[in-house]
Amino acid sequence: MPIHNFNSGPSILPKSVYEEAARAVIEYNNTGLSILEIGHRTNWFIQIIEEARSLVKELMGIGGEYDVLFLHGGATTQFMQVPMNFLDQQARAAYTDHGIWGSKAINEAKVWGEVDVVQSSANSKYDHIDRLEFLSNKHSYLHITTNNTVEGTQVHHLPETNLPIIADMSSDIFSRPFPFSKCSFIYAGAQKNMGAAGVTMVAIRINDLPSISRSIPPIMDYRKHIEANSLLNTPPVFAVYVSLLTLRWIKEQGGLGVMEKRNHEKSELLYNTIDALPVFSTYVAPSSRSQMNAVFFIEDELLQQQFLDECKELGMIGVKGYRTVGGIRVSMYNALPLSSVQEFCSLMKDFARRKG
Amino acid sequence: MPIHNFNSGPSILPKSVYEEAARAVIEYNNTGLSILEIGHRTNWFIQIIEEARSLVKELMGIGGEYDVLFLHGGATTQFMQVPMNFLDQQARAAYTDHGIWGSKAINEAKVWGEVDVVQSSANSKYDHIDRLEFLSNKHSYLHITTNNTVEGTQVHHLPETNLPIIADMSSDIFSRPFPFSKCSFIYAGAQKNMGAAGVTMVAIRINDLPSISRSIPPIMDYRKHIEANSLLNTPPVFAVYVSLLTLRWIKEQGGLGVMEKRNHEKSELLYNTIDALPVFSTYVAPSSRSQMNAVFFIEDELLQQQFLDECKELGMIGVKGYRTVGGIRVSMYNALPLSSVQEFCSLMKDFARRKG
Repeated sequence: MPIHNFNSGPSILPKSVYEEAARAVIEYNNTGLSILEIGHRTNWFIQIIEEARSLVKELMGIGGEYDVLFLHGGATTQFMQVPMNFLDQQARAAYTDHGIWGSKAINEAKVWGEVDVVQSSANSKYDHIDRLEFLSNKHSYLHITTNNTVEGTQVHHLPETNLPIIADMSSDIFSRPFPFSKCSFIYAGAQKNMGAAGVTMVAIRINDLPSISRSIPPIMDYRKHIEANSLLNTPPVFAVYVSLLTLRWIKEQGGLGVMEKRNHEKSELLYNTIDALPVFSTYVAPSSRSQMNAVFFIEDELLQQQFLDECKELGMIGVKGYRTVGGIRVSMYNALPLSSVQEFCSLMKDFARRKG
Repeated sequence: MPIHNFNSGPSILPKSVYEEAARAVIEYNNTGLSILEIGHRTNWFIQIIEEARSLVKELMGIGGEYDVLFLHGGATTQFMQVPMNFLDQQARAAYTDHGIWGSKAINEAKVWGEVDVVQSSANSKYDHIDRLEFLSNKHSYLHITTNNTVEGTQVHHLPETNLPIIADMSSDIFSRPFPFSKCSFIYAGAQKNMGAAGVTMVAIRINDLPSISRSIPPIMDYRKHIEANSLLNTPPVFAVYVSLLTLRWIKEQGGLGVMEKRNHEKSELLYNTIDALPVFSTYVAPSSRSQMNAVFFIEDELLQQQFLDECKELGMIGVKGYRTVGGIRVSMYNALPLSSVQEFCSLMKDFARRKG
């Protein structure tokens, strides 16, 4: 039975990435060595990480004013590392709050300085994201989450602001063209659109790194990582390699424009199906819907469980909503084929006909 | 040409680990899914991480008073995370200083509290480690590095102390039986004896975790990781799986006693060869020599370069000394076969005969 993987992350990657990564675990590039035993200071690995850093810049359309790092620790560690480096003691940062991950970022930032939540949809179950215009001379930066994996919303208009923008793009990086160069700092855990779990990509406009009075722990200091060309400590070699393979695949497929076209086609099909079938509902505002994660539900919980069971029987996995939200969640990252969404929508229609 | 991999880390792993890991990248355990696309909250992955946590305890011979975590960030992040959790503001910690990694741990600790270096061999090029007896009622813990990868020394007698011992065992974990239960906290980057780069193992005696007045960043709080069963954020799934395969291999081979026997045989052969050939020298004190990393040199630098070139031609890789130390370094972790050391020693003898 073919599996349709709608996991929210770690999630499906291109089949060619699995094949090439598996070959490298046996032997990397005719070296006689597994990729797992290659030293991180060898030319072999330097070429891997340099190509990956350069592909990130190429896909983002950013230049030498930025540096790109591949770090440990997941986006959650960035929730801490960003304020450590960008938010001075007693200084204030502006955060938007549109979901569980943004709110975790806020909690980590509060350890280091003052946080003002300048926009939130918490009072309406995180069901929408309004356009934001935010001018300020008392905040060090504005932090946003461009896609809310758990709640199924996505930023469709970058805020208009005079502040440096720091963007957590973990769940929609490289899924669409984006005005990357309007951001001072972009970060993303790799395990959705950019590779396997275990590495986090960071792009920094170097001149926007502020001087901070606290002593930054050396291992958390972006400047030290930049000086060390992203080799300050042993990087997660294999995870960086899988990111490189995924970045190459994105480029070979035609880049971010092609990704967006495909992602639009998949998500439009799914949202149209939800809207057409009364048994399925979503409280996410149409203008805020995510192309990556569709969050919806069946009001009757027994019926919903039946639907989830049928998904499982048909090899459609990862469709149960996040534990705090419930319902159904379908994630449609770059590597998910249209055919998986088509199969899923067929089941929805069939289910609605049988149970409706 | 067969390759002999003497890398200091990332380093050689058992061939069976490469084979099983490569299979899992294509399809994990008849799931129809690559290990790279499996969600970290699935039963599949929970079984992987629980077996790995339990194997660590079994190999260490420690019980329920400890918890075992698989974390991001490398041992270098532990250099910061340990004092964040164990060293209160204005409190003092005792550190030994026997090499570059211990001294980096000291630098990270100084950000968080007061550090007293209670034993150091820095003044003699880190060439030895004395027995340490250290009683104190003014220090929160004693931090040691059990093996110095760069300098080629190893702790052969655990310090006698009334303080909680915190041990960085990155480069000799599971290479020998060890009084693990005399330590309050043990950590190790996986990329030498325990797996691939990208995951760090931590074993904590739970009751020894102190109350600390600072607010610990949530993502760095060991208590929160323990409560979340090592799933506080998305773990590096593949790296944890490779650690599980390596831990299984250690157990199947017969455990830590067998590892030590093999490691002793390899290192004895190498050190005997160094001692027998006047062209090779080492300044490491015989009683402090590491079974994992032998650091030595040829006084004539041109001759030394010739030797390093010959190693390269014969597929013996990773034998150049660490950049700040120079010379020759041969790392002999668990998975390195005796035959590689035999080949290397043959070359040494042959070289000495030709050039001596």
